[in-house]
Order: sequence, then C-alpha cells, then structure tokens
Amino acid sequence: MTARIEFRLNATDGKARTGVIATPRGDIRTPAFMPVGTAATVKAMLPESVAATGADILLGNTYHLMLRPTAERIDALGGLHKFMNWQKPILTDSGGFQVMSLSGLRKMNEEGVTFKSHIDGSRHTLTPERSMEIQRLLGSDIVMCFDECTPFPAEEKVALESMRMSMRWAQRSRDAFGDRPGHALFGIQQGSIFRDQRAESAEKLSDIGFDGYAVGGLAVGEGQEMMFDVLDYAPDMLPQDKPRYLMGVGKPDDIVGAVARGIDMMDCVLPSRSGRTGQVFTRHGVVNIKNARHQDDPRPLDEACTCPACRSYSRAYLHHVFRAQEMISGMLLTWHNLHYYQELMQGMRDAITAGTFEAFQAAFHAQRAEGDIEPM
Amino acid sequence: MTARIEFRLNATDGKARTGVIATPRGDIRTPAFMPVGTAATVKAMLPESVAATGADILLGNTYHLMLRPTAERIDALGGLHKFMNWQKPILTDSGGFQVMSLSGLRKMNEEGVTFKSHIDGSRHTLTPERSMEIQRLLGSDIVMCFDECTPFPAEEKVALESMRMSMRWAQRSRDAFGDRPGHALFGIQQGSIFRDQRAESAEKLSDIGFDGYAVGGLAVGEGQEMMFDVLDYAPDMLPQDKPRYLMGVGKPDDIVGAVARGIDMMDCVLPSRSGRTGQVFTRHGVVNIKNARHQDDPRPLDEACTCPACRSYSRAYLHHVFRAQEMISGMLLTWHNLHYYQELMQGMRDAITAGTFEAFQAAFHAQRAEGDIEPM
Repeated sequence: MTARIEFRLNATDGKARTGVIATPRGDIRTPAFMPVGTAATVKAMLPESVAATGADILLGNTYHLMLRPTAERIDALGGLHKFMNWQKPILTDSGGFQVMSLSGLRKMNEEGVTFKSHIDGSRHTLTPERSMEIQRLLGSDIVMCFDECTPFPAEEKVALESMRMSMRWAQRSRDAFGDRPGHALFGIQQGSIFRDQRAESAEKLSDIGFDGYAVGGLAVGEGQEMMFDVLDYAPDMLPQDKPRYLMGVGKPDDIVGAVARGIDMMDCVLPSRSGRTGQVFTRHGVVNIKNARHQDDPRPLDEACTCPACRSYSRAYLHHVFRAQEMISGMLLTWHNLHYYQELMQGMRDAITAGTFEAFQAAFHAQRAEGDIEPM
Repeated sequence: MTARIEFRLNATDGKARTGVIATPRGDIRTPAFMPVGTAATVKAMLPESVAATGADILLGNTYHLMLRPTAERIDALGGLHKFMNWQKPILTDSGGFQVMSLSGLRKMNEEGVTFKSHIDGSRHTLTPERSMEIQRLLGSDIVMCFDECTPFPAEEKVALESMRMSMRWAQRSRDAFGDRPGHALFGIQQGSIFRDQRAESAEKLSDIGFDGYAVGGLAVGEGQEMMFDVLDYAPDMLPQDKPRYLMGVGKPDDIVGAVARGIDMMDCVLPSRSGRTGQVFTRHGVVNIKNARHQDDPRPLDEACTCPACRSYSRAYLHHVFRAQEMISGMLLTWHNLHYYQELMQGMRDAITAGTFEAFQAAFHAQRAEGDIEPM
C-alpha cells in the first residue's frame, strides 16, 4: 500500500460538495456517512451487511479498542480490518473525546491525559504520540489528531486556551504520525462558537498541513441552530481541496444541513443506537416501533425502502419482536436505519452532481413535514 | 396446497433411517434437526441465515405465540410463515409442555388446562380443541397433538393415568384437526419409562392414526442413559412408515444416539441458546469462548467448518465480542452452532445412505475424545 490517499472533488452545488476520497482500500464517496463500529463491530450487524447498506468506511473508537482487546493484541492478530472482517477503509478517532465522556478520574496537562478505564478501572495515559501509535497499531486508514474536544458551553478564554493546546497537540500528532503512504492524518479545528478562534485554529492546521480537516467541538449539546451558525463559516476556513469531516453528527436533518454547509464526512451512533431502541428513520420522519399503533399493521416501515426489514417484514412483526426483546429487532432496525442513512447520502451525492441540491433539501423537509410520524 | 404430506424412507442402516418428508412447502430431509423459533424468530438469526445452515423446517412454540402476538393476530397478518419470513415448513408444538414449565397458577382437568401468562398474568385456557385451532391459525405445517408431558420421575400409576388422558386428548386432537390436506397431525407417545405403558400408548395412537409420531416425555431430566434405555424400544413400537420425532433433544451425542435408535426428527434450543452464552459445538467437542485461553488465538473455532464465524473470524475476535457483550457474538456463535448441527445431520444422512452409520458413530465419538476441548 504505497498509494497516497487523494481527494477528488467532482461537483459542487452552492457550498455542497461531492467527490471521492481514493484510498488503497477503496473509494469513499462523499458526502459520506460513517457507521460507528466502536468495539470492532457495528452493533447488531455483520460487516457484509454494513457494506450492503452502501457504507464505504467505518469509524472505530481508539479509546474502546485500546482498553479491550488492546491495540497491541489487534496488531498481533493482523490489524483491525482483519480482526473485524472489514476490508474497506476505517477511520479511527483519537480517543480524546471518549476519555472525557466515559472514563473516570482524569488528569489532563500539556503532556496528555491520564485516566481510569470504565471497564476495569485500570490506569492509562493518552498523549498525541501514544494516540498515533495506537491508531498505527490498529491499522487505521484515516487517523485523527489527538485533541481536546472543548466542552460546551465554554468561556471565551477557556475555549481559546483549549484550542491552542489542541493546536500544539496537532503539531505533535503530525510529527509522531510521520510519513505513512496509504494512510491519512486529519487535523481537527476547535474554537467552540467563537469565529476568530475557529479562524486561528484553521490557519494553524493548514500551516501544519493535513490530509483532511475535521470541524471539532460541535454536536456536544449546543443544539442544531448554534451548530449551523458555526457551520455557516467554519468549513469555509478550511482548505478547499481536502475533505472536511464533522464529527459525531447526527440526525438526518443535521446531516443535510451540514452537507449544505460544505461538510464531506460525518459519523454518528444514532442510526445504530436508535435501531436497538426501536426508533426508526424513514423518509417521512421517525417511527417508534414500540407504539401499540403498529401491532396490527401489515405495512412495511417504508414502502419505498429496499432494506431487508422493509422488504420482508411488517410493522406488526417488527413491533412484536421489539416487544418480545428479540435480537432480530435490533438487527433489522439497525440495518434499516443504516440503509436509510446511506440512501440519504446517495440522494445528496446525486443531487449535488445534478445541481439540484436546493430542490433535494426542499423535498427532504416537505416529505418529513407531511409524515404520519411520531415526534422523536 | 392440496398435496398430502408424505414420508418416503430412502435407506436404513441398523435401526437408523434416512428419508424425506415431502410437504407443499418443501422437502424435509430426515434425520432432521429443527431449530427452535419460539417467538416467531430463531434468536439472533435472520431466517435466510437459518436456511443457509441447511435447516429444512423450524419449530414454533404455540404457548409463546398464543400469548404474544396471539394466534388471531398472526392469522390476520397472513399466517406465521409470512409473519416471520420463513417459507419452508414449520412444526408447532401443542403448548402443553410450556404451560407446565413456564406459566403460573395452572389448573388441569380432563377438559384441558387453565393458566396465567408468564408475560402479563392474563388468564388462558388450552384444550385439545383450542390447541388445534391455534395451530391452524398459525398455519403450521406439522401440528402436534395436545398432551400432558408426564413429569419425571412419575410413579407408575400416575404415569399411566397421565398417559391415558393424553391418549383421550390425542383422539380429541384428531377429531378437532379434521382433514386438512397439506398439513400433518402428529400423535405423541407417553408412558414415562414404563415399557408396557409405551406399548399401550403406541397402540392407541396407531389405532387413531396420525401422519407421524413423537416420542414424548423424554429429555425431562431422566439423563441420557435412561433416555436411551427407553429409545431402545419405544420408537420400534411406532408405525415404521411414518416419521418419528423425539421432542426437545438434544446435545450432539444425544442426537446421534437417538438417530441410531430409529428417530427421524428432533428439535432443541441448545445450539441457539448456547450460541448466546458462548458455548460452541465443534467436531472436537465444546469450546467455551469466554475462556481467556482464546484471547490471542488467531485460529477459527474449527478449521474445517465453513460457517461465517469460522470462515472470517478468529477465536480471539469471538472471545473479544463475547466479553464486550456485543450482539455479533450471539449472532455468529448461534450461526456456527446451527451450522454444526445441520452438518451433523447431513453426515448422518450420508452415512445411513452409504450403510456406514456404525463407522460414522465411532468416528464421531473418537474425534470428540481427542479434542483439546473444555468440558461442557
């Protein structure tokens, strides 16, 4: 694998972009949605089923994998792709976000962060250098810089200090990553909701130079309106010729709105997590399959959907197996949700290519407004 | 569907038999193992995956389905096959066994049994007539008589009274079932471990006349030795030209021993339940995937197995996802176990056809004895 990872922009429509990230493990069509495979599995799915939904790339969580089964073990077993039976590209996060949200007893300083495992209480340290090492051991195709996801809300001064430390960590990540043909390193813009900080962060990252750039520090409780406010300007500050990745987003309308603002990649646990809790995404909005209204309904979740759940099962069946707490419920509903998300991405890619993205957005919102759907 | 269900015996080897039960929904190759789809799903499996293991027929549980989602609802939705997306044959039990093992506050008399649902405490009655009606509403291809599974151990007099009531219920089941081309009704032999009672029961059932005959009242705690003692004579008492079904059996060596004694059909939750608890059946015996010895093991569960779990995953991965309580663990291990069971059945069918069943049995036991396998 000596080829470089390359981003080709094929079309734009307004700020929305469509293209391809070419990697030795296959092309990633953008805008791309990455299902989350936290612990070396997209929950309730076989990897061939994930691929069948149209996913070109998965996200793996460094924090979870370093604790169990450990990066060294995965490396000894041939890397994450082989371990989890997924041969297409994998992006790994840096571990920083999950350390803050999941682990206990953290101590952070300029060097990095020390924490206790949420699994067994064991003590671990993550630094930019260690995060790069772990992501290399995993065999990740797209590696993320180790950063601090600035909490929200943050005072301007606190956000500034946090962003500047993340920029120093970005340089250390870049230095530790080195030159690895066939593998990409993405920088992460911080700066909370402060435009001048976002600009400073973007400038610093482009000076260092990365293969792609993430908009970080969003989807952390600020709400869609404020997130869109930041996305109205933050992606424009990043290099035009590299992919832009919005981390941890989101609901279908978040995704459409982010693409409209120039985002190329996203990831979120929402479609898989919702699949396990009976919340289903459709063109007409959200269906809560546990509601008794579905118990005699012979219709599929969505007549127009071609996923296995919609092709072969009634709402009545899906209601029944959800209520009976059968595993097939999570399996089918996760499959449907991931299929829905990938169809949404394909629809956006087609519309951007055709120059009809504005009409696509209008139809997307109109269809949801007319639905007979429960509020989410 | 006007065709009759027919049993064709193709070969025998000692007492072991191989043949085909031809039904309008497809052939059932015997000896047949029926995976259990209690609540309209074989737990952790999609129906197409169950079919891919080689299963020709599933078992559904009348007790569970009558309570949730109810037989009337399944009928209104087009029957159990359509409801659960399984177009091959389905055998349903009568509900009697599970009423006794799962439900609360039972009252049994000559008429039938009244009980409280284990799900919501609601009150229900099962009689031979109602059981026939429910199994008709479900659309079952092979319907089981409503009987009392005589508890073990039972005093001779108690067993005799229980058996005779079951025979009266068998007649009522036969009368209520009527004539339904394309659907079969099986009688159930009782009589506990008492040879003369087994003979009386068999004679009574053949007088009534059924499309197949089950050996009932076994696998209820008597142990393999005593079960085999009964199977040394009980199947011989049943009509030679009809399929013989041993209910609720069993471990792989139970199954081989039962086939050696003239049994044609079996069902058991063991392969699917064990799959969810990390217990794996292989040619070499049982593997407990949760054991730490597997955590660095790059080998598959069984090099010779062609199931998805063995083709694409290491023991280390299967250990990891089991420990992480990921759903893919139950999905893959259940698939493997069902695949193993179906391969075992195919091996026996081939050996009986070839007249080498004795050698097959010897090899089966020798291979297990040499394994590096944990005790079960």
